[in-house]
Amino acid sequence: MIPGRKFWGWGVTKADLSEGQKKDVAGRMEGLFDISGLKLSPPPTLAEIEIAEPDITPPDSLSGICATDRWERAAHTYGKGFPDIVRAYGRDFKIAPDIVALPNNESDVVNLLDWCSREGVAVIPYGGGSSVVAGTEPEVGNGYNGALSIDMRNINKVLEIDRTSRAANIEAGIYGPALEAALKPENLTLRHFPQSFQFSTLGGWIATRSGGHYATMGTHIDEFVENVRMITPSGLIETRRLPASGAGPSPERFLIGSEGAMGIITSAWMRLQDRPVFRENAALLFPDFLSASEAVRAVLQAGLYPSNIRILDAAEAWFNKVHEGNEAVMVLGFESADHELGAWMQRALECCREHGGALPDEGADTSTEGRNTEGIAGAWRDAFINMPYIWEALVAMGMISETYETAVTWERFPEFHETVITEMKKHMAEICGGGFISCRFTYAYPDGPSPYYSITAPSKKGSQLSMGAELKSAISELFIKLGGTITHHHAVGRYHHKWYKQERSELFGEALRAAKGVLDPSGIMNPGVIIDPVR
Amino acid sequence: MIPGRKFWGWGVTKADLSEGQKKDVAGRMEGLFDISGLKLSPPPTLAEIEIAEPDITPPDSLSGICATDRWERAAHTYGKGFPDIVRAYGRDFKIAPDIVALPNNESDVVNLLDWCSREGVAVIPYGGGSSVVAGTEPEVGNGYNGALSIDMRNINKVLEIDRTSRAANIEAGIYGPALEAALKPENLTLRHFPQSFQFSTLGGWIATRSGGHYATMGTHIDEFVENVRMITPSGLIETRRLPASGAGPSPERFLIGSEGAMGIITSAWMRLQDRPVFRENAALLFPDFLSASEAVRAVLQAGLYPSNIRILDAAEAWFNKVHEGNEAVMVLGFESADHELGAWMQRALECCREHGGALPDEGADTSTEGRNTEGIAGAWRDAFINMPYIWEALVAMGMISETYETAVTWERFPEFHETVITEMKKHMAEICGGGFISCRFTYAYPDGPSPYYSITAPSKKGSQLSMGAELKSAISELFIKLGGTITHHHAVGRYHHKWYKQERSELFGEALRAAKGVLDPSGIMNPGVIIDPVR
Repeated sequence: MIPGRKFWGWGVTKADLSEGQKKDVAGRMEGLFDISGLKLSPPPTLAEIEIAEPDITPPDSLSGICATDRWERAAHTYGKGFPDIVRAYGRDFKIAPDIVALPNNESDVVNLLDWCSREGVAVIPYGGGSSVVAGTEPEVGNGYNGALSIDMRNINKVLEIDRTSRAANIEAGIYGPALEAALKPENLTLRHFPQSFQFSTLGGWIATRSGGHYATMGTHIDEFVENVRMITPSGLIETRRLPASGAGPSPERFLIGSEGAMGIITSAWMRLQDRPVFRENAALLFPDFLSASEAVRAVLQAGLYPSNIRILDAAEAWFNKVHEGNEAVMVLGFESADHELGAWMQRALECCREHGGALPDEGADTSTEGRNTEGIAGAWRDAFINMPYIWEALVAMGMISETYETAVTWERFPEFHETVITEMKKHMAEICGGGFISCRFTYAYPDGPSPYYSITAPSKKGSQLSMGAELKSAISELFIKLGGTITHHHAVGRYHHKWYKQERSELFGEALRAAKGVLDPSGIMNPGVIIDPVR
Repeated sequence: MIPGRKFWGWGVTKADLSEGQKKDVAGRMEGLFDISGLKLSPPPTLAEIEIAEPDITPPDSLSGICATDRWERAAHTYGKGFPDIVRAYGRDFKIAPDIVALPNNESDVVNLLDWCSREGVAVIPYGGGSSVVAGTEPEVGNGYNGALSIDMRNINKVLEIDRTSRAANIEAGIYGPALEAALKPENLTLRHFPQSFQFSTLGGWIATRSGGHYATMGTHIDEFVENVRMITPSGLIETRRLPASGAGPSPERFLIGSEGAMGIITSAWMRLQDRPVFRENAALLFPDFLSASEAVRAVLQAGLYPSNIRILDAAEAWFNKVHEGNEAVMVLGFESADHELGAWMQRALECCREHGGALPDEGADTSTEGRNTEGIAGAWRDAFINMPYIWEALVAMGMISETYETAVTWERFPEFHETVITEMKKHMAEICGGGFISCRFTYAYPDGPSPYYSITAPSKKGSQLSMGAELKSAISELFIKLGGTITHHHAVGRYHHKWYKQERSELFGEALRAAKGVLDPSGIMNPGVIIDPVR
């Protein structure tokens, strides 16, 4: 286990904001919303939390890999979404899993699933627990005799590296940093760096269609999966390790994104990259967000595929201390292990200039701190990594702070964006008496972007959860109504299930349910996720 | 209907080889195999063929869109694979569909499926009929009261073009040339040019995971599908039109490659390209095929993604009159609508030179005809388009002429390739007294190539079909045993079903079967394809 890992929130305690930083955040919020007296609740302690005695006990044959102590059960209760942090700070761990299993190999997983199938115990597959959609929460209804969280952290080796094909066979429970460390001696890298990188696992990434480092082309983990091994209650599914195939509906794509509802991913052959040597980076300012978005469209439709092309609106740039001013910011980067990238960057910059983009030293307003290109990109990188810690502090001081992400075609985007911003401001004013919304693009495609909205708003004491839920519901309805998806890379889990069902054809849902009936006949796997509860 | 379309074989009669060309082909075969007296059988005529009276008649409500004449029934009997042509030249059309339906819209399709579900009539979805794996053959066993081929050719419009997102909503029955013609005024193109381009449809491409123009990156049609509409016997499935999503297992990927076993694709939003303006092309010679393959690997792993990078071994180059000599040939090309490609080509050529590649005018042996770069690329383009006509002539003169394609990781490729070549030469010697085998790469990925093997061998009179089946079986076993896939882009159909089942996990097959049970409860859709016959 990662030393210092919190059982209630993001990451490790030692990386939490200092008292000074917390005061700074509180001060900014007080200024922004014209409120006063914001104080951070202290995080919960193990002694304080409300947690029930387990309903079930593991059989002797499994007790060696099963934990039932308070820490493990509490740590496997919630993900890292807004409602999760609120409930954790509320000391409410009533829905903790009865048991946390820590299998050491595939046959442990098989035995656990066998026991759970026989005993009617719900299984919650658990990678790093960084879900923000309650994908790992043991809230399974009344149809089960208990809930068991299967934490894959001990199944965590890089088993084999194929240098020639640039691929590796990797066990699902490995965390991001350990994975990269194991590949480094071969000068290889997966380059999958979701915001959760430090505290999430390969198996979790694959199960949830995680979004990684690349802003274009290989955006989701999906593209890097050569094969998948999954243990289901009915047995093993393993897809064939291949660079590509045209044999029937893709079996990998059927397992990728199944979010633990079909089985547990135990390992995968992953496509790797050589570690980059050549880099071209730039940060640009645009007169407004829509101009920046048109520049992103131009670069993507030009077929340039930068590894990084993220844009922040002025609000997002200000909130994250990246840039102060009315301009939108773009962070642009190409990388290669093989060749100089001048030609690529040069053409991308031309596309940007055609849409009003300028490098700060080209005469556009620089930030108040006079940041240069490196300053802006560096500030964004730092903000990106620290965000979850700031965000926990915001929740601890009673704010509603949430992120909502989607994807939509370019043609629809301008109206989509204006409606979302306008409507959400209205909702925040009505529900919270005010609020702050900002937007960035996390990923982009030739046919559309993936916009990512962040909101922060004050709440009334005791209503933080319900007011947050109202806002979540409002924006989710908008996403679906305006032609977006309920999630581009945060997955479905329990929080998105209602809107996911509106997004997909009912018949496709029934087909998935029938498939689950084969793989998980007792309906024990992550009940309520992807497929409506079956018992 | 395309004027002059054959009911028995590839394309249109007017594009068939001239008598002189046929003699040339026969002469080359006689020289190659030291045989004599090769004569082409004449193609069948409608009067000659053996075809039974239909077992069923359509109800009055559907008779207006149902054809039962000899031509339509004969034309919808076979695909364009080797066994298909042999049987067609044998005048054997006994398995012709009872009825050929020509729906004009989705509600016609719904009514047809309703009737077939009620009456226990098997449905064979039909695009252009270019399947080489018997995907459209009405060989459905004894569980049905008849077989109806649904030809989608009248549902063929480009419904809407979204210039901003570069996408279009296109009906499934449109043929390649009509699709491109409809997009041209907007300066857009799908750029999906499978060898069957002229005689295949969008719906067929999606249903079979067709391989197109791009040798790298967007190789399969899969990547260009924004959404799919499919009519199943249980109703409509439509996926949401999105640039990307992370919501559950991809619904598009579940329908793409379903080969008519779940339902009939009626339309799709497709991602498009601007028509290319800038091009860089080169043809190179390599001392041997493995050096050329290493160059392909280097270019792909460098992240350059040329639109064309095809290599031919010396045998393939000779057979197709592209180059004479011991060298392997590479045809390399970049294209863009946006920017000059000098930097891309320059680095790709460096990668090639590092592996022994040379431009013919750099001092490597040129072909006996002294072909320059354009000559080689042009010769390959011509050969590629005319191949199916030559191939029909070979079959008509009693040769066995087949193609087998797969994909395999780079690390496995050298042994894979050597074994396939050695074993197949042995098999051809034993079965046919000799034979010719050649290889090219049709597509390539950072983690492996898609090798494509072509064989030609003499047969004994009356044994052409069984000897061909023996060879097909031998190479398919090798593909599976050596870690390849049974198909990279020819699909599964009926010919590959046995090996497809070895390639996929049994549990995945059962999950697909359960899903089919929901979408097609009477089991009428393309029986025996992808899923074992259900009645």
